[in-house]
Amino acid sequence: MKAEIIAVGTELLLGQIVNTNAQFLSQELATLGIDVYFQTVVGDNLIRLQESIQLASERADIIVFTGGIGPTQDDLTKEALAAFLGRELHIDRISMDLVEDFFNKRGAHMTENNRRQALVIEGSSPLTNSTGLAVGIALSHEGKHYIVLPGPPKEMAPMFVEQAKPWLLQHAITNEMPIYSTMLKFAGIGESALEERLIDLIQNQTDPTIAPYAKEGEVTIRISTKANTEQDAMIKLDVLEEQIRSILPNHVYANKDISIERAIVDLMTERKLTLSAAESCTGGLLMERITSIPGSSTVFLGGIVCYSNQLKEKLLNVPHDLLEGDGAPGAVSAEVAEVLAEQVRMIGDTDFGLSITGVAGPDYSERKPVGLVYIAIAERGKDTEVLELRLSGNRESIRMRTVKSLLYRLWLKMVQSEKLQQDS
Amino acid sequence: MKAEIIAVGTELLLGQIVNTNAQFLSQELATLGIDVYFQTVVGDNLIRLQESIQLASERADIIVFTGGIGPTQDDLTKEALAAFLGRELHIDRISMDLVEDFFNKRGAHMTENNRRQALVIEGSSPLTNSTGLAVGIALSHEGKHYIVLPGPPKEMAPMFVEQAKPWLLQHAITNEMPIYSTMLKFAGIGESALEERLIDLIQNQTDPTIAPYAKEGEVTIRISTKANTEQDAMIKLDVLEEQIRSILPNHVYANKDISIERAIVDLMTERKLTLSAAESCTGGLLMERITSIPGSSTVFLGGIVCYSNQLKEKLLNVPHDLLEGDGAPGAVSAEVAEVLAEQVRMIGDTDFGLSITGVAGPDYSERKPVGLVYIAIAERGKDTEVLELRLSGNRESIRMRTVKSLLYRLWLKMVQSEKLQQDS
Repeated sequence: MKAEIIAVGTELLLGQIVNTNAQFLSQELATLGIDVYFQTVVGDNLIRLQESIQLASERADIIVFTGGIGPTQDDLTKEALAAFLGRELHIDRISMDLVEDFFNKRGAHMTENNRRQALVIEGSSPLTNSTGLAVGIALSHEGKHYIVLPGPPKEMAPMFVEQAKPWLLQHAITNEMPIYSTMLKFAGIGESALEERLIDLIQNQTDPTIAPYAKEGEVTIRISTKANTEQDAMIKLDVLEEQIRSILPNHVYANKDISIERAIVDLMTERKLTLSAAESCTGGLLMERITSIPGSSTVFLGGIVCYSNQLKEKLLNVPHDLLEGDGAPGAVSAEVAEVLAEQVRMIGDTDFGLSITGVAGPDYSERKPVGLVYIAIAERGKDTEVLELRLSGNRESIRMRTVKSLLYRLWLKMVQSEKLQQDS
Repeated sequence: MKAEIIAVGTELLLGQIVNTNAQFLSQELATLGIDVYFQTVVGDNLIRLQESIQLASERADIIVFTGGIGPTQDDLTKEALAAFLGRELHIDRISMDLVEDFFNKRGAHMTENNRRQALVIEGSSPLTNSTGLAVGIALSHEGKHYIVLPGPPKEMAPMFVEQAKPWLLQHAITNEMPIYSTMLKFAGIGESALEERLIDLIQNQTDPTIAPYAKEGEVTIRISTKANTEQDAMIKLDVLEEQIRSILPNHVYANKDISIERAIVDLMTERKLTLSAAESCTGGLLMERITSIPGSSTVFLGGIVCYSNQLKEKLLNVPHDLLEGDGAPGAVSAEVAEVLAEQVRMIGDTDFGLSITGVAGPDYSERKPVGLVYIAIAERGKDTEVLELRLSGNRESIRMRTVKSLLYRLWLKMVQSEKLQQDS
């Protein structure tokens, strides 16, 4: 089965935003066994949009639109598709209620143009928008299948996964052998090192297939196979997963698509452990990542962003002699990282205390180079572990990679302590 | 003049990489006054590639290819274009020397397929690759202009800027006027409300043009005009900017592409003001955003993530009676927000203290609904401002919008205090 993705929006053609939706949808369609032959981007222009629809419906079986369904006059995707199919548009009552509710709750006036967000094409299935206002559409017409999704990624992605994907499985791709896949999530190893370790498996494997990819300091491998039943698939996938785990025992933190912060919160919840943190150069990023996980409040009690030396002394009792003066190791040092982790653990009375101090750049500080970072993990009743990192990249990537490194170390410590207990 | 960008590569259609090249090229072409009407992505397939070339040459004057010019058998862009134009391919001697040099210098054996990287179309101008091996191509044919660039962004971008752009200016776009534009950044107002306030301007304006767009709780307007000189353009753009500012005086925080956190750090640096923060439900996101700005350390001293009630009491002196017990307002209350902001301001001895306490979800807490958030701004020597927000959306969007609201309020407070001083 062939698909085409049409992203609609002049902001894409002006280069104001990058088309991450096409990537997301391509990945998702690939897992359904659907081949994407073209991705098209067209502006907010009725005629060119209709030309694109005409062309796509000639060369694809499934056409997925993203964008152009917001409240404004230049949002034209639904109009263009309805006109192409010769069908009417009407207001979907349930969607309209949701839009009105949204404004009522805020006590805000709903402008008339917002009614457009509740439009659907006659005879279609509305796709509810769980994170925004504009309703989506799924419909089949003369053997072709059309999916209309919003443009903002945070609306598009959940709508595709929760609604469009099940709809496609039910209406469009009933006679393909389904693809089953397992996602293996790695931490503490880079993409090329991973590929090198797995090169024999990658080169010799045809079924299941192995597809590694990397994003934002995380490496993921998707192993996939076609099978008639889930059970048949899982047997093949499990064997390969075990092979990979035996080659890289300390790096697979999950076999589903979760972040390492999610894995940590789950593990700590299960073991009734608690956590606090003191951050300097990452400025709150570590705590923000942990608290992004729903349910993290049973594990994470809080912490301190000690960006200035004053606060390091005042709130975390770092001795002045460590921070300033001749021969002092300075704020960016293993000594200070250790004190920060131990102090914040004691202040929060938690099982673990984490700390970060370093130079995120763009300028050096304390005559120390950009990318020099110390991380520490204090554990109740144990010695504190301190690590020196030397990272390259810009401010954002140094901060992100510092946090990922510390999370990996924390995860490893917990997993290894479990192994020790089991072994003893 | 109309352009189309064709990105070639099956890895794009599988979603393994995101098409940042299309964004880069669109931005570059826009600054040359060239309208991009379509972006296309096609796989490494000769027939579909030729179909795409056919179509693009019917609907555009300039066709820019990126990708598919490497050494392997599935790199087909040059072959497909040569066949479409009915021209021959031959090895460019200078490019071939560079490829051979590359392998000789490393003492590495050059495999035969690397000769493909030196292929050019007869009658074309070769575009030298300053950061890689594959040579690019520029040529005009029957009134259409074709540019062939490599796929890797670090090869594509310099080749476009250093060679393709000057070639286009000389051969293709000699009589176009360049486009100049200003970006206006808004806070504290949504996309549809903004559009409603500016509807007359938007509907009546043809030059300069007005293009609003929204992302992650921020609204941006780009105003653009074609002109012979930058001075001519700026006169027209300045008049329109003033009109927009007079309609929405409290919402334009910048006329360049910066975040509101950047605007705040700049303003506070200029006025030598300092800042601290206490965050509950946002878990560090506010401080992370502020410290993402290089140079924020002169303004921002630090703060506390008081996720648990214990830490609210212990570190921020919130009276126990406010947090727990019969008739207590609870952690999510205006009273607690006020104490948090004032206490953290005093602990840090800063000019401003910010605080956030609320229910980010997915579950309610203290019998309070998801999306109920209190934010507060304490200022040295002034009354503390407390605001109640009622937000909808998921955990991530509630947290993000809370932070954006608080940043907007802080910016507004500073701008208005400046106005008061000027008026008095």
